[in-house]
Amino acid sequence: MRQLKRSPRRPRADAVRNRERVLEAAKAVFSAGGAEASLEAVARAAEVGIGTLYRHFPTREALFEAVYRREVQQLADLAEQLKQDAEPLGALRHWMRSNVKFVATKKGMLSALALAAYKNSELYSYAFDQLTRAVGGLLDRAIAAGEIRHDITPEDLLRALVGMSYMNDQPGWQTSVLRLVDVFIDGLRIRPTDPGREQRSRKHRNRR
Amino acid sequence: MRQLKRSPRRPRADAVRNRERVLEAAKAVFSAGGAEASLEAVARAAEVGIGTLYRHFPTREALFEAVYRREVQQLADLAEQLKQDAEPLGALRHWMRSNVKFVATKKGMLSALALAAYKNSELYSYAFDQLTRAVGGLLDRAIAAGEIRHDITPEDLLRALVGMSYMNDQPGWQTSVLRLVDVFIDGLRIRPTDPGREQRSRKHRNRR
Repeated sequence: MRQLKRSPRRPRADAVRNRERVLEAAKAVFSAGGAEASLEAVARAAEVGIGTLYRHFPTREALFEAVYRREVQQLADLAEQLKQDAEPLGALRHWMRSNVKFVATKKGMLSALALAAYKNSELYSYAFDQLTRAVGGLLDRAIAAGEIRHDITPEDLLRALVGMSYMNDQPGWQTSVLRLVDVFIDGLRIRPTDPGREQRSRKHRNRR
Repeated sequence: MRQLKRSPRRPRADAVRNRERVLEAAKAVFSAGGAEASLEAVARAAEVGIGTLYRHFPTREALFEAVYRREVQQLADLAEQLKQDAEPLGALRHWMRSNVKFVATKKGMLSALALAAYKNSELYSYAFDQLTRAVGGLLDRAIAAGEIRHDITPEDLLRALVGMSYMNDQPGWQTSVLRLVDVFIDGLRIRPTDPGREQRSRKHRNRR
């Protein structure tokens, strides 16, 4: 009897595919429609039965959490890839802009929850740790290349990004936030020829 | 009999002074101790009896709101003064930095409330309108002087500031946030000699 039992650790290939389809559909549905978007709508978008959806994700919260963790993982993977990019500052900007899209999904999912409760959750800690590590690598590279100031931490950067995104609830907020991210990244850059940088201009004066 | 009745519209000078003392003390106490700071502590710091405090502010919420509105008014007044400043960008930076201190008081007062509830309140709309107008004047001046890019709205600026401040709950967060504000203001600046600004360098090339 023992050899006939299928191991619960190895789901069949089509179950893996279905799970992935549900997650991809859920991301799109939540991101567009907010927390009120129904699980039925997700199942329809994924082209699976509602039974299949519930088999993978018994509760609404379980689905939210899986979508959320998957996006965090994707952002971590993206950071790894971007480390190969020849332009450290461009890579950092690219990652920050991608994170704004992640926030869009999160906003949809979290709109029904109080931010305070979310900020104390294990899920938030997990995401914050993962994303801090991801952006930290890109930040270090840009600092090492002498492209940006070195007194901003990965934590600061993430908080700035998430903060800028969460305070903005207007239609078209993503466009505004992407512009703010651009301003922010521009502000990080070191411009040795810039007369407005007091310390540097003082150094120049001393050299004369 | 009529001429003996004191008009309720004209509080005595010491009542006005007491009210002001309570508000100043409350600001300091809330900002340091969070929403748990007791009204007794406020009365002690203001050197008034607890009865006097309750006469002016019958509920904790009434005191919170009065402190809050007073700070908004002070920031609006500050913006008016700063419009006389000879350096438009310096004035904008000064105001943004002062607003971080305002957020410190708010954080203390609002720590017990969910951000979502606050964001839907009449008080929030009032503050947002007042502060948008205040920073808008300073922003317009810096744009007119050709010092900063013109595609950032007062609303964007405020949301960026408040967002950056609210996401940061660590000890010493004010120092981090002031640094982020500096980065952000730096990012707004137009630097005609900057080779990284594509459009402008293209213009330079065309002129040759």
